[in-house]
Order: sequence, then structure tokens, then C-alpha cells
Amino acid sequence: MDPDRMCPRYERAASLLGKKWTGLIVRVLMGGPRRFYEFGRQVPELSDRLLSERLQELEDEGIVRRIVHDSRPVRIEYRLTPKGLALEPVVQAIQEWADLWVAVPRQPAELREPAAPGGP
Amino acid sequence: MDPDRMCPRYERAASLLGKKWTGLIVRVLMGGPRRFYEFGRQVPELSDRLLSERLQELEDEGIVRRIVHDSRPVRIEYRLTPKGLALEPVVQAIQEWADLWVAVPRQPAELREPAAPGGP
Repeated sequence: MDPDRMCPRYERAASLLGKKWTGLIVRVLMGGPRRFYEFGRQVPELSDRLLSERLQELEDEGIVRRIVHDSRPVRIEYRLTPKGLALEPVVQAIQEWADLWVAVPRQPAELREPAAPGGP
Repeated sequence: MDPDRMCPRYERAASLLGKKWTGLIVRVLMGGPRRFYEFGRQVPELSDRLLSERLQELEDEGIVRRIVHDSRPVRIEYRLTPKGLALEPVVQAIQEWADLWVAVPRQPAELREPAAPGGP
């Protein structure tokens, strides 16, 4: 990797991982396959609609596989693919950095101040 | 870390890193301090306005420091803080995963569907 060149792969990976809830969903699935309602139980703040959207995105990216078990009633499970499992060191690196360096602001309004452009 | 709990620190870190150009700017600065125009030279696709915005965000987050040298003409440099330097393993983990697993589509339309045989 040339550090000074734009890497489309990197940008694509980072933007995918940067979506809200994606990290959490991947982390939950690292504990093993989960059924849809189990996410809701573990993450009450996450709406069904948004969970469904994120799982679909992760499926489209080949990170999550949706498995339909031929049983009665039909059982649907979500699990990580090898590509998804390979995210473990990434998730861990982000978490370690965040634990050490990221403060959690009390109010979203404090996140940023409108500032004048810094460039000379 | 409880893998099944939302971690605001993690979410904040991931969303920050997921912004377009942020990874590249951090990577360039890992090579040492840079002046504003040097980014433009190395990354011609990045507009001055966007670069200025990203640098300001990274400054607000304590990842980048803007240093004004008292010289004539005034020299302004951007460099990583310890918090920014600590991002190295994160950037590396994302890059390694991206190199192995992320395909770069030629056209946005190809993102979700395999290209037709004999296509471009």
C-alpha cells in the first residue's frame, strides 16, 4: 500500500464499517449465529426496520449469510461468512483505540462547533 | 467489552473513521507532518474545501494538531497527536481486511450484481 494514494478498497471497507450499528451487529454475530428476534432482545435500541436494513447490507457485502432451516416453523439464522469472521482484528483494533482515546460527549450538540475553515 | 451491548465509544470511533478521505489523510500524516498544499499535491482528487473540512474535524477530535510556525512567511503544519498516532493498528487492520476481502467495482451499477459475461 502506498500511504499517499487513495485506496478504493480501504475507503469502501471503512465506510461500510462506519455505519451505525454495523459494528455491533458484527460483534454480536461473532458470538455465533443469531435469529432475528435475538438481536432485538440484546439491542433494544435498534429498531426492526434498521436491523433488517443493516443485515441486508451485510448480506449484500458477503459478510453475513442468512440461512433458512427447513423446519416447522421455518427457522432463519444469521451467521458470519469467512469474510465476516475475518473482521475480528478490525473490530478489536477499533475497540481498543476507542476505549483508550474516545470520550463520549453528554450531548450531541457538543460534538462539533461550527468553525471557520482551517486551511491557509 | 460486552459484545452484545452498544458501545458509544466504538460507534463514535467507527463513524469518524468511516468518513471519506479521513483514512487517507491520517495515513499521509503517518509519514510525518505535512503542509496544507502538500496534501493537494499527493491527493489531487481531494478538493481544498473538503480537505480543510476533514482536517478541522480531525483537529476537533484531537487526532490532528495544526501548528503555526512563527516565521516569514508563516508556516502552517498538520501533524498527528498521540491519539492520532495510536490509530496506526486500526488503519492497518482495516487495510489488511480490505486488501483480502473487498472487491472494487468498476462501475457503481456493478456493486450488487455480478457483471454479465462478455461485459466491460
